[in-house]
Amino acid sequence: MSAIKKIFQSRPDKDGIFFKRMQSILGFKPKEIGYYEKAFTHRSLGLSKNDGNPLNYERLEFLGDAMLGAVIAAHLFGEVQGGNEGYLTKMRSKVVSRKHLNELGRELNLLRYVRAAIPKEHFGANIYGNLFEALIGAIYLDRGYKYCEKFIFKRVIEPYVDIEKLEGRIISYKSVLIEWCQKEKKKFNFEVYEDTGQDAVKHFGVKLTIDKSVAGKARATSKKKAEEIAAKRAYYAFQREIQAK
Amino acid sequence: MSAIKKIFQSRPDKDGIFFKRMQSILGFKPKEIGYYEKAFTHRSLGLSKNDGNPLNYERLEFLGDAMLGAVIAAHLFGEVQGGNEGYLTKMRSKVVSRKHLNELGRELNLLRYVRAAIPKEHFGANIYGNLFEALIGAIYLDRGYKYCEKFIFKRVIEPYVDIEKLEGRIISYKSVLIEWCQKEKKKFNFEVYEDTGQDAVKHFGVKLTIDKSVAGKARATSKKKAEEIAAKRAYYAFQREIQAK
Repeated sequence: MSAIKKIFQSRPDKDGIFFKRMQSILGFKPKEIGYYEKAFTHRSLGLSKNDGNPLNYERLEFLGDAMLGAVIAAHLFGEVQGGNEGYLTKMRSKVVSRKHLNELGRELNLLRYVRAAIPKEHFGANIYGNLFEALIGAIYLDRGYKYCEKFIFKRVIEPYVDIEKLEGRIISYKSVLIEWCQKEKKKFNFEVYEDTGQDAVKHFGVKLTIDKSVAGKARATSKKKAEEIAAKRAYYAFQREIQAK
Repeated sequence: MSAIKKIFQSRPDKDGIFFKRMQSILGFKPKEIGYYEKAFTHRSLGLSKNDGNPLNYERLEFLGDAMLGAVIAAHLFGEVQGGNEGYLTKMRSKVVSRKHLNELGRELNLLRYVRAAIPKEHFGANIYGNLFEALIGAIYLDRGYKYCEKFIFKRVIEPYVDIEKLEGRIISYKSVLIEWCQKEKKKFNFEVYEDTGQDAVKHFGVKLTIDKSVAGKARATSKKKAEEIAAKRAYYAFQREIQAK
């Protein structure tokens, strides 16, 4: 049995559970679970493979970073009309900033899957972003570019990449929406509801009603974030009316 | 008829010829020739599309650069065993350096396809590399990631990405080979032969014989390059014997 197999079989959560958790994060079934195990193996374990490659996630970060860069570039190219290449480059670096990647890794609670020989408190500040990149690297090796693209759409672009915001046209959808409601004498209400999801991290549900009908609903890891996403959904539902003002 | 159509239909070489030349550079048939026309349209023409996007290759450079970065990263990840992510990053920047991209664009004689309102002598020093990146961007839009990968393998990795050289273990295959021949008392000869290829740029053919049998053949845009490639092929043919010394 290889060293990595041993490590992962000695986990309190067995391979089957790790597999299911990966599947729930990824949105598809891993083909070769070994890549994902590697993406969560810290260098402190000092493992290496027969071919001399160190067995930890660091090289996968390099690969994931490149795939993330390509997918985000293609998305921005299609969405940001009229911006030149310098502008596109600047927007991409906002999306793939260390800070943002750390947030994404934290949302998915990636630290809980790590196997390491040091206490988790001793990891550097960028552990979440690094794991997030390594995970994308593992997806590439397991399933190729198309699946990286799917995953990045689901976990990065769909929930967080907002062209209006990136371009600085809108800082907060919540304030744009409130302003519009006040001007139009519409009654609005942000209501927190009980979230029953099975996510690893606690989520908050927020429902935004405008004139008593639901205009947007969202779940996120904080009330503030959920409100903003609900407001964004309502914004796009009323976009014409709002922009006509 | 759109502005771009007009421009390209007024070329002395008609659409059909441009299509065939692209096909020969790409190694496959373009589906949507418009992307490639854009990849060779210079900003000096001042064109733009109905959607407000400028009609020139500059945004395509951004896209092509990202795809190139991803494909080279995946290749190095597989080939360079044991190097950590900092090392891989350094190797990638050698491959995608401005200097190297300019060479690649020059090899393909990309400047001849450009439509511009200024004389070609006035282009900046990086025009070749920029066109090369834009071409990859066009391939992505036309055919997706897989075709970018194929093209980059054919035009960048197969002929020019040499792990031994990148890692600094071998500076010149020619000198390694000559040294070995002298030590082993083998007779070697680099012979230039008549090249009859139909390439846009003149190519030189070089045949390397060792003890009167052909050990490597190559074609390139200079005698020196062709000699080096022929020597590299011979090196890999005799790798065991050479490394045993």
